Amino acid sequence: FDTYELTADLDACALSIVVIGASGDLARRKVFPALYSLYDGRRLPEHTTFLGYSLTKFTDEEFRDFVFNAIKGKTERSEGSQQRFLDRCFYRGGEPASKRSFKELDNFLGEEEIGHTAANRIFYFAIPPTAFVEISRCVGSSCKSQTGWNRIVVEKPFGHDAQSSSQLSRSIAEVFPEKNVYRIDHYLGKEMVQNLMVLRFANLIFEPIWNRSNIANVQIIFKEDIGVDGRGAYFDQYGIICDIFQNHLLQMVALIAMEPPVRQEAEEIRNEKVKVLRCIKPLALEDIVIGQYKADRQHQKAGYTDDPTVPKDSLTPTFAAAVLHINNRRWDGVPFLIKCGKGLDERKVEIRLTFNEVPGNMFGRQVLPNELVVRIQPNESVYFRIMNKVPGFEMTVQDSILDLSYKTVYKDDIPDAYERLLLDVALGNQMLFIRGDELEAAWNILTPVLNHIRREKIKPEKYPFGSRGPPAADYLVARYNAKWNEEDQ
Amino acid sequence: FDTYELTADLDACALSIVVIGASGDLARRKVFPALYSLYDGRRLPEHTTFLGYSLTKFTDEEFRDFVFNAIKGKTERSEGSQQRFLDRCFYRGGEPASKRSFKELDNFLGEEEIGHTAANRIFYFAIPPTAFVEISRCVGSSCKSQTGWNRIVVEKPFGHDAQSSSQLSRSIAEVFPEKNVYRIDHYLGKEMVQNLMVLRFANLIFEPIWNRSNIANVQIIFKEDIGVDGRGAYFDQYGIICDIFQNHLLQMVALIAMEPPVRQEAEEIRNEKVKVLRCIKPLALEDIVIGQYKADRQHQKAGYTDDPTVPKDSLTPTFAAAVLHINNRRWDGVPFLIKCGKGLDERKVEIRLTFNEVPGNMFGRQVLPNELVVRIQPNESVYFRIMNKVPGFEMTVQDSILDLSYKTVYKDDIPDAYERLLLDVALGNQMLFIRGDELEAAWNILTPVLNHIRREKIKPEKYPFGSRGPPAADYLVARYNAKWNEEDQ
Amino acid sequence: FDTYELTADLDACALSIVVIGASGDLARRKVFPALYSLYDGRRLPEHTTFLGYSLTKFTDEEFRDFVFNAIKGKTERSEGSQQRFLDRCFYRGGEPASKRSFKELDNFLGEEEIGHTAANRIFYFAIPPTAFVEISRCVGSSCKSQTGWNRIVVEKPFGHDAQSSSQLSRSIAEVFPEKNVYRIDHYLGKEMVQNLMVLRFANLIFEPIWNRSNIANVQIIFKEDIGVDGRGAYFDQYGIICDIFQNHLLQMVALIAMEPPVRQEAEEIRNEKVKVLRCIKPLALEDIVIGQYKADRQHQKAGYTDDPTVPKDSLTPTFAAAVLHINNRRWDGVPFLIKCGKGLDERKVEIRLTFNEVPGNMFGRQVLPNELVVRIQPNESVYFRIMNKVPGFEMTVQDSILDLSYKTVYKDDIPDAYERLLLDVALGNQMLFIRGDELEAAWNILTPVLNHIRREKIKPEKYPFGSRGPPAADYLVARYNAKWNEEDQ
Amino acid sequence: FDTYELTADLDACALSIVVIGASGDLARRKVFPALYSLYDGRRLPEHTTFLGYSLTKFTDEEFRDFVFNAIKGKTERSEGSQQRFLDRCFYRGGEPASKRSFKELDNFLGEEEIGHTAANRIFYFAIPPTAFVEISRCVGSSCKSQTGWNRIVVEKPFGHDAQSSSQLSRSIAEVFPEKNVYRIDHYLGKEMVQNLMVLRFANLIFEPIWNRSNIANVQIIFKEDIGVDGRGAYFDQYGIICDIFQNHLLQMVALIAMEPPVRQEAEEIRNEKVKVLRCIKPLALEDIVIGQYKADRQHQKAGYTDDPTVPKDSLTPTFAAAVLHINNRRWDGVPFLIKCGKGLDERKVEIRLTFNEVPGNMFGRQVLPNELVVRIQPNESVYFRIMNKVPGFEMTVQDSILDLSYKTVYKDDIPDAYERLLLDVALGNQMLFIRGDELEAAWNILTPVLNHIRREKIKPEKYPFGSRGPPAADYLVARYNAKWNEEDQ
Repeated sequence: FDTYELTADLDACALSIVVIGASGDLARRKVFPALYSLYDGRRLPEHTTFLGYSLTKFTDEEFRDFVFNAIKGKTERSEGSQQRFLDRCFYRGGEPASKRSFKELDNFLGEEEIGHTAANRIFYFAIPPTAFVEISRCVGSSCKSQTGWNRIVVEKPFGHDAQSSSQLSRSIAEVFPEKNVYRIDHYLGKEMVQNLMVLRFANLIFEPIWNRSNIANVQIIFKEDIGVDGRGAYFDQYGIICDIFQNHLLQMVALIAMEPPVRQEAEEIRNEKVKVLRCIKPLALEDIVIGQYKADRQHQKAGYTDDPTVPKDSLTPTFAAAVLHINNRRWDGVPFLIKCGKGLDERKVEIRLTFNEVPGNMFGRQVLPNELVVRIQPNESVYFRIMNKVPGFEMTVQDSILDLSYKTVYKDDIPDAYERLLLDVALGNQMLFIRGDELEAAWNILTPVLNHIRREKIKPEKYPFGSRGPPAADYLVARYNAKWNEEDQ
Repeated sequence: FDTYELTADLDACALSIVVIGASGDLARRKVFPALYSLYDGRRLPEHTTFLGYSLTKFTDEEFRDFVFNAIKGKTERSEGSQQRFLDRCFYRGGEPASKRSFKELDNFLGEEEIGHTAANRIFYFAIPPTAFVEISRCVGSSCKSQTGWNRIVVEKPFGHDAQSSSQLSRSIAEVFPEKNVYRIDHYLGKEMVQNLMVLRFANLIFEPIWNRSNIANVQIIFKEDIGVDGRGAYFDQYGIICDIFQNHLLQMVALIAMEPPVRQEAEEIRNEKVKVLRCIKPLALEDIVIGQYKADRQHQKAGYTDDPTVPKDSLTPTFAAAVLHINNRRWDGVPFLIKCGKGLDERKVEIRLTFNEVPGNMFGRQVLPNELVVRIQPNESVYFRIMNKVPGFEMTVQDSILDLSYKTVYKDDIPDAYERLLLDVALGNQMLFIRGDELEAAWNILTPVLNHIRREKIKPEKYPFGSRGPPAADYLVARYNAKWNEEDQ
Repeated sequence: FDTYELTADLDACALSIVVIGASGDLARRKVFPALYSLYDGRRLPEHTTFLGYSLTKFTDEEFRDFVFNAIKGKTERSEGSQQRFLDRCFYRGGEPASKRSFKELDNFLGEEEIGHTAANRIFYFAIPPTAFVEISRCVGSSCKSQTGWNRIVVEKPFGHDAQSSSQLSRSIAEVFPEKNVYRIDHYLGKEMVQNLMVLRFANLIFEPIWNRSNIANVQIIFKEDIGVDGRGAYFDQYGIICDIFQNHLLQMVALIAMEPPVRQEAEEIRNEKVKVLRCIKPLALEDIVIGQYKADRQHQKAGYTDDPTVPKDSLTPTFAAAVLHINNRRWDGVPFLIKCGKGLDERKVEIRLTFNEVPGNMFGRQVLPNELVVRIQPNESVYFRIMNKVPGFEMTVQDSILDLSYKTVYKDDIPDAYERLLLDVALGNQMLFIRGDELEAAWNILTPVLNHIRREKIKPEKYPFGSRGPPAADYLVARYNAKWNEEDQ
Repeated sequence: FDTYELTADLDACALSIVVIGASGDLARRKVFPALYSLYDGRRLPEHTTFLGYSLTKFTDEEFRDFVFNAIKGKTERSEGSQQRFLDRCFYRGGEPASKRSFKELDNFLGEEEIGHTAANRIFYFAIPPTAFVEISRCVGSSCKSQTGWNRIVVEKPFGHDAQSSSQLSRSIAEVFPEKNVYRIDHYLGKEMVQNLMVLRFANLIFEPIWNRSNIANVQIIFKEDIGVDGRGAYFDQYGIICDIFQNHLLQMVALIAMEPPVRQEAEEIRNEKVKVLRCIKPLALEDIVIGQYKADRQHQKAGYTDDPTVPKDSLTPTFAAAVLHINNRRWDGVPFLIKCGKGLDERKVEIRLTFNEVPGNMFGRQVLPNELVVRIQPNESVYFRIMNKVPGFEMTVQDSILDLSYKTVYKDDIPDAYERLLLDVALGNQMLFIRGDELEAAWNILTPVLNHIRREKIKPEKYPFGSRGPPAADYLVARYNAKWNEEDQ
């Protein structure tokens, strides 16, 4: 993938992008802004058809208003591109999916594709997994292009355990072969996450220290400072483990921990991610802490079960902390400390590698272990915490920062994750999408403990909104001689 | 050495600091300002006696004027401290050194020491080595304190080859045991040079990459943008190899290359420096390039032999570039590229570790080797050159800087090297001074090639003032598959 | 695979083993003796049907005589087992493969399978690849069991280049899914080859030295002291590169060079072998030497083209030496030196890891690099060549052997490779068989150079029968600062 | 030291070897046999004078009988060499050491030295340390050669703690400068001990695994199966810690643990031994177990305090087990487990490096950690314990031995340690002798705990003669997650 310009191949064929669930939140917040931005940047063909479908009844005009709300205020790199984009937006829908209704979509697309020898179609499933099976069958039987490729984009959650995920996979596979399935985890589209591979494999200095001889623990921390805020109905079905841990966090674990791939190609990289996920022992119950936020002390923020969209007696965790063990040469004995939660004290996503104490340390207790921090959000950055001599007569040693502030150095727009990923779908690059066996390996890590929690109705520990989460998360990592490093910068 | 405050031990005894060569350039520029600063900071006893001696005829008042010129403009941390310092400055001299004249010094000091049960004396030799032998004998026979310690501070150049250095050492040893000899290399007093030990040994992350498996070459570059400017008479006797290479540069080599010491103590650290210097093969003639600056193309800057204080036919090198080989487990096969010169294009002292290319590199030619740079002068700093993904759709990789800018982080005054070292002499801490066997090991590296150059009257290659030095220096390192990295930041 | 006893699963179903090409050399020398040995050891069901098929006309009795010749003299662990085995041997054949003739086989097998609810069938293709396609179609259409599994065993050569191999793979895939295809490379059945994985991954001491920082080169040497001796017709079609290098040698390269698998399972191990094969750069013409043996100087041994079964003007190589480069973190810069040939000075197969010279060596020229030798044939053994002090007053250093002689330590019968592999087929363990993508990766390394050699009709260098091969093989490795280590023990 | 033949230098001067304590056990068992063997091998000058001195009254003839008893039965490499050797043996003594008596020795030696321009003398102190001071003064005032070198050989124990050792060192230093003092630890003369340096530094494969990342613990085990047997009077003054641990065992620790020296020279090697000894933390009381043997259960062997030469209430330990900690980069966290004792179950001296468990082990519990064993006594050998696949269908893994049996490989006589060391004294090679600062560093490790034991009269744990020693030694190492590996081969 040498170029991300609009390729001749792509431009030569008709392109249709069908957004299933077009009136939903995800479509409005992420999908259409990203599609517009690509269109505005002339990375999609001029005549691309953007077709919305959902249960909502919309005319094309009403739909264009909806889309306009989603994109207004975005810059136009080429004049009039917003209008041109809206002109290419269409809507069909308003009734449950059926062979018949999808045949109509097909007919509509067919007309837009006239004049091209081949037609390619992307089906973006911005819908809950419960609706996947039915709709993918409809697409399969009635709406696939016969003259070009058909690709499907699906969003997490990919089921709620290994079994349900595998069922989903099988029903998708009936319609789309693996090479046309694009499972999105938008964290993989983030610049700093992509940079992980560059940092690790384009720099000599990291490999010799990236292992159990030098690393005391790896921490992956994903904190949100907001609650469910109306998304409770959806969230309560899945909980933090399926919503965040199973996808974003395990993906980051895989990128941090994987072996170097043969080369920088989709299949090779995904092979390595699968490999390392398979090396992770299924999470044990004693290695996880679950929590659920309650109202804060001042009662200014409501608790999780106070949310009207959430059952009062819900046991769904909004917080999880866990310790993963990777059973291979590189990582045996290095705990991977995972923490994710809603309603916490800050919004932050970062990866921290804490190095061992200096063996034979001759400077005494003032020496702190080195750390490598990859901040993904907010303020993307990479920095090393190292020890320096403090200028002065005494031999005083202090920790300082060897810093690369991404935003400062790279002042140009960092592309949005969705934009990047949707372009990859159009170009057929699966590198940043989750392969079926990868998904399966990820579920195998979490399914036993998920089953256990559900079967035994294990109660999450309550923590006040706006706090660091339940103290049990601290005791958990203390057992591994570690502590959460959250304080600096 | 837990504290650099004035110790009770030091304060309890009389202290006299005798500066031999007190009317000279070094005394004025470095020694007295440093002594004043220590005195002002109350790190020396109130009643310390600063006694000047030289061939110049001075009254105490004339000498105080001379000293005042050296210190005026410096801040007074305690009010009136400049005057109090000047009041403690005295002068005796004006005639050649003899037993008799030093007996007089002794008598004078004796009077100032009255009222103390013990008297300590520091003899600072700010004079050319040709005068050392005679004066140290005079000190020995007539001027040592009988009731406290006597310490001698000597300045480079320590002779002009192994033999002359060893003669000097022996004649000093007749008067002062090794534990009272303080051979000054003021580069060892620089903060960033001291920081080398902290960086290497208080951080886990450096040790695994600090070796032949990971480092392609080490560069130590010492560039001055001025010529000899009137110091020609002195300089021409020694040349750049004895003046800079043998001391400052080999000291930096030792600190970069040495093994971890047993602990952070003077003898242990000096043991390690000796050890690694002994591992260096004597420099071979084919591994050195010598140069001499000539007038620049615009004839605005005079050439070396244009200087009135320099013989017209002088073959003295003002530039040297060399490749050293360290024959031990850590460094076998890693060339140490040394470059020093006057009349060059910039003023800069830095140490650069160039790492190997990434094995199995999957990102192609855009990947540059990592570098660790320790800038000693100007703008002390430490930084890593690493490769990052450039934000954007393409997988473009670019080098960036993981930076610790010393001056920015540490805004307080960085103490002057001389100040630090003179305080160490008073406190009896030899850590930053060169031990006799260390000096010997350093000379053993350079003496054979120095003899060769002198015997065969090898001509230095001319280079224009203000240039990068002779091109032969580039060809030299090219033989080791290296190039000088001088361009960045 | 915890046990290699006859499993209840296997014993519960009818088992038929159909040997296609039953009257051939391979069937007689390897397949039937191995089948008998398994049968004799009660590792196959008592009622297993051994059915021969080939173009030869045989009655069952004539075929049993043929089989008896193959197994006579082998020990009987249970009395009368030879006779019982022969009683279970049957033959059908004598005419070209056709749907009809295979339907007859099916009928015959069906009768033997009566009384079992399920029937499993193994089809052993002991025939040249030219016949594969036709016969596998016949099996597919007319002879597969409908009530159990059907497995196919195929022998190298797997085509003569990437294209032909891929064609073969596709036609087999039409009939047998990958999980039922067993591509045999009998070297993988050898004890010492299997031991490679144990040595590497069950011992801590090898991993830290098993890499480019410590290994100067890896040599894989495969020497035969005989010529083609009547197999010329077959051999001349393929040559040494397809016959030996592409399979046995690349398999050994993969086992030596691969990364640790996730766990000791067929798919995981084959994943790693594919991975490392994909890291190998396609062999360049300048990195290969080909040779062909001629008559020896005494004319006691005929040359290759003197063989009546070989065309007089044949350019087929009977010898190849090559240097492979593996482009990954572990091996970048370490040449893999491959040598294989017929008509050489000895019969030997071994793998040698030559380590680097000792950096900072303090013992001088008497120190030779360490070596790790894995001898596969003859006299299986593993040994380290290390330096020791020779007892005596002088500090004389000499190389000695840290030895594990396999045969001495393990006196029991080492099982024959074919026996082991055939049992694996029956038990469904694909660990020691070559997967399709693995085969493809191996061909990708050799196909470009093979095409080049064939297209340009490059002449092999002649070497006398019984010699070390052409001197060009020595010059080839000398370019990589290496020499063949063939002399010791 | 390129040659151990008789050098021209040595042969040109008169050589006298004065054995002080000539009638004692050590002289008879070790010193004279070694001197004879050197003389017989023509490594000493023909006219060497062997002069005995002790309190015993002997004529020359009686002394020659005594010496003859010591050497009879030894082979004569040159005919009549025993007689020639005896002819050069003389005796003076029979009264306490005094200036006068040593003046007599001097006169006698002077006569034997007539005809040589220079005379060299070796004084071998085969006497208890209590007599050292007096006799070394006599030698100093009355018996030193004025025309050649004078060397002193002293035997352990070098005092009983840091203070007494330092006193001894100072009184010897008054007479002999350090470069003429040869402190013998005959373990350093053993072939396998010398081989340690070769193994470690002439083989690439050991360095990468010789560190805390790979080694779980180091064991140094010194077991004797005999008791004090009449040497009780001497032994009871010192105990096992001063008699064995402080010298033999700490020397082995130093050789195992030291960093590579600059080169293979006496001072460089001794620098490294001092360095590593200084990195060892003083032994803590909780890290040592002391024991004393009692009669065995069958009462066939007497207990320590049953020995008539031992006080009934003696608390002197005959056994010690201890854990040492080396605080440097290489060894931080690796316990060095030391065990020495008399009256144990076997006679064995060996060093064992136990490696860590295989990280990410894929073969399960059958995998044992690797071990490197250096057997010093009996049957000198070096071997690796590694895991192999057991031939057979199953993947069974078992430990085997990669062996170098010294005696088998090197069939020639391995020279006796004393012979080697005495020749080194004559040739002036101090490499295998303990330097003063080394001795001091060794005492600093043990003195605090020795003082503690003596002050508090800590009782040794009793163990039966012929047992493995007190169980507390097992519990001690269990605290470090280790066990003694004593059982194999």
